[in-house]
Amino acid sequence: MAMPLLNCDMGESFGNWPLGMDDDVMPYVDCANIACGFHASDPHVMRRTVALAARHDVRIGAHPAYPDLMGFGRRSLGCTPAEVEDLVLYQVGALAGICQAEGTIIQYVKPHGALYNDMARDPELLKGVMRAVRAYDAGLPLMVMATADPGPFRALAAEIGLPIWFETFADRAYDPQGQLVSRRLPNAVHHDEATIVAQAVTLARGEAVTASDGSALHLPCDTLCVHGDNPESVASVRAIREAFRSLESA
Amino acid sequence: MAMPLLNCDMGESFGNWPLGMDDDVMPYVDCANIACGFHASDPHVMRRTVALAARHDVRIGAHPAYPDLMGFGRRSLGCTPAEVEDLVLYQVGALAGICQAEGTIIQYVKPHGALYNDMARDPELLKGVMRAVRAYDAGLPLMVMATADPGPFRALAAEIGLPIWFETFADRAYDPQGQLVSRRLPNAVHHDEATIVAQAVTLARGEAVTASDGSALHLPCDTLCVHGDNPESVASVRAIREAFRSLESA
Amino acid sequence: MAMPLLNCDMGESFGNWPLGMDDDVMPYVDCANIACGFHASDPHVMRRTVALAARHDVRIGAHPAYPDLMGFGRRSLGCTPAEVEDLVLYQVGALAGICQAEGTIIQYVKPHGALYNDMARDPELLKGVMRAVRAYDAGLPLMVMATADPGPFRALAAEIGLPIWFETFADRAYDPQGQLVSRRLPNAVHHDEATIVAQAVTLARGEAVTASDGSALHLPCDTLCVHGDNPESVASVRAIREAFRSLESA
Amino acid sequence: MAMPLLNCDMGESFGNWPLGMDDDVMPYVDCANIACGFHASDPHVMRRTVALAARHDVRIGAHPAYPDLMGFGRRSLGCTPAEVEDLVLYQVGALAGICQAEGTIIQYVKPHGALYNDMARDPELLKGVMRAVRAYDAGLPLMVMATADPGPFRALAAEIGLPIWFETFADRAYDPQGQLVSRRLPNAVHHDEATIVAQAVTLARGEAVTASDGSALHLPCDTLCVHGDNPESVASVRAIREAFRSLESA
Repeated sequence: MAMPLLNCDMGESFGNWPLGMDDDVMPYVDCANIACGFHASDPHVMRRTVALAARHDVRIGAHPAYPDLMGFGRRSLGCTPAEVEDLVLYQVGALAGICQAEGTIIQYVKPHGALYNDMARDPELLKGVMRAVRAYDAGLPLMVMATADPGPFRALAAEIGLPIWFETFADRAYDPQGQLVSRRLPNAVHHDEATIVAQAVTLARGEAVTASDGSALHLPCDTLCVHGDNPESVASVRAIREAFRSLESA
Repeated sequence: MAMPLLNCDMGESFGNWPLGMDDDVMPYVDCANIACGFHASDPHVMRRTVALAARHDVRIGAHPAYPDLMGFGRRSLGCTPAEVEDLVLYQVGALAGICQAEGTIIQYVKPHGALYNDMARDPELLKGVMRAVRAYDAGLPLMVMATADPGPFRALAAEIGLPIWFETFADRAYDPQGQLVSRRLPNAVHHDEATIVAQAVTLARGEAVTASDGSALHLPCDTLCVHGDNPESVASVRAIREAFRSLESA
Repeated sequence: MAMPLLNCDMGESFGNWPLGMDDDVMPYVDCANIACGFHASDPHVMRRTVALAARHDVRIGAHPAYPDLMGFGRRSLGCTPAEVEDLVLYQVGALAGICQAEGTIIQYVKPHGALYNDMARDPELLKGVMRAVRAYDAGLPLMVMATADPGPFRALAAEIGLPIWFETFADRAYDPQGQLVSRRLPNAVHHDEATIVAQAVTLARGEAVTASDGSALHLPCDTLCVHGDNPESVASVRAIREAFRSLESA
Repeated sequence: MAMPLLNCDMGESFGNWPLGMDDDVMPYVDCANIACGFHASDPHVMRRTVALAARHDVRIGAHPAYPDLMGFGRRSLGCTPAEVEDLVLYQVGALAGICQAEGTIIQYVKPHGALYNDMARDPELLKGVMRAVRAYDAGLPLMVMATADPGPFRALAAEIGLPIWFETFADRAYDPQGQLVSRRLPNAVHHDEATIVAQAVTLARGEAVTASDGSALHLPCDTLCVHGDNPESVASVRAIREAFRSLESA
């Protein structure tokens, strides 16, 4: 049984400001979403992070964002699809340049923060992102948020000619449509490790999770988002990894 | 007889601010030094400029700089060689990403402004730049300022393993060591088209130019820097191109 | 008869990039909206522009914006009202620091571009801007877009305790609600000088302009926006100024 | 006996990146050097930091820097004195705008990092900084590094007409000229709390410290630089404060 890939945001330090426990979490993930300097990181942090991922044989993904260091890429910016296309090309290329110096390559693209959310809502923005990734390498998968109805995303990906990976979350509650419950609402985020691991295993097995209204929700799951922000989240990643190893050997 | 390549800074607009007469000068040059977003340009300007160069079959060069939009990359920034190496990798990669979308590639690298001057003075910085270019593509020539004594640059290039192109100027006076006379001194810049064309032809023929003290100065000349800032400089480029065509057919 | 103040965006050059005909238009306006470094300008451009305005006895207004040089402040950025409040305080203060060195002061505030439009649509954002201006100086007028129904703006200004100036445009068509007709639609922008001057005079007299559906539209008009981008717009400003002088002496 | 003022860099977080233990160290210092957004901080961090300082009745100082977030203002940037003057005016004004919203004011200026070091070496740069501070408020003291020969700084301050405060360090070794021993050399930084407190007390009493060559070094000391980076440095600040209280009551 093939497990979903564990992906984690990495390399989000910037200049003199450290952020994240990259060294601790890198050994347990499959995919490192590496910031490209627009919401976080700089050429030196990128170099260190790419080298760290390469050393652990972790797949490197470009993690492009709106140009907004002050807002960490979490604020929507009113860009046209053509602007987004060029912003993504620039950032993917920049990371690829760093990769070349470390003898490695980019293996997928996951847009960050507000750009990730905006493209999930706006097909024209999504097509801008897809055109950028395809222009860089038409074989590079693009991560998109899994929903209860992945059909439209699959159709768009086929139209543009780009592989996509559906991403789910082990530590977030879903509404019946397969959207993440807003963090502003109660019970939106799971903090208990057992709950997180259980949701990860359910998603990995392709079984239905329970949505916020109690209904059964099926989500496609090529990859699972995990976090390396603090010791608790790193511990959860280790626990998910262990659970996946048991499943694989079962 | 092979003429030196005419290279010109291009794509130095930024967002809402246009700069330079790229459309007018592109038909007459061999090499476009394309800004990478650190001293000028942005992903959209880069895309337009790469497309323009490709349409005219002009070789594309990365034109990386210190991160200083406010100072147009003309102010030295106290970076370590390792920092410079990563800054160059990032910018070369970013431009390469844009090139990929336009079906073309980077064919050389010319650092901009203060970085170009600083690396000519500091061998450790130069080696940092060279390591970056070599890591990206060990066959990519790096432009360096021609001087009366090119030996040390050639030795360094051989040590690092990177081709170099020596660059000269048709519109600037040289001192006896082959350094440009400071713009703050009188007669540092030639404004007369006939004088500019004559110096270009002298350099192209491999003959000695007259230094500021009247001595004869031999300079290696793989490429000649020209400008597209205003109608006068564009006219000079056309005149140099015409003079070179006559020389070639002679 | 008191004429509306002519206000014009100024000081929108940045570093090496000149923009606008500030020297030419400054003699004909009453109010200079001076960019504060977030959508355009830098400390040196601000200094020159403040000095120019002071020399012509033109009132200086802070022209704060979202932090987006690449997009010239024309793209909405998803900021909270508290973020907007602090962004405005920072920019107003920065310009005030420059003014102090030139022996002059800020006399009003006009937000720029997307921030100006967003605050017109979102009362919470507008209150954030108002709190910032009031904190800086509770006597400083804030420019807001005039509409057919200025009541809600007046109520908000009274609630916060801040004077407001309603701004109209001489070169733009209005819809029946007093909103500007989108530039994407035909006839949204007047290019003919006579039409522009006529609309300016109509607005100055407090008479109704004809909206895009032919209806009569009354707009409050404390100030009129004019432009110094090119020779045509500068000529229009001179013509409006002349027309206002005739009205005043009439 | 008047003790030197304890000053500490504060508000050096940026967007999503926390830095420093401001809350812990604020109760023990006299002066908060508050970053102004060029090497660290943003309008929101500035607002929080100003409010924190005001709550503790700590004097607020502007901490302007070269525009270099990526390098934390620690890299020299080749600015002219006129450029530095405008950069400082902008940043001091911006912080003053934030102060106004919190009902407080700036009481001194301390340039940061490379700018602080560069102005200590280059009288023209120092005069640029002094002109900026004087233009903002001619009564505002400027912090400069104490040396064995403060005469030239005093002369320059008198010439420009600006008060200066000499700053010393309790945790750094000095050479015989009163320059800080480079961090790259052994024993440049004191890590032992007792040594740090002893040097602070010696400087406060106006007694000579022992320079790196064993000679006695007299330094003027209006203010002493302390650090809030980590629990150890915060503990040292508390210990210095306690020692000063004993001295004062003695």
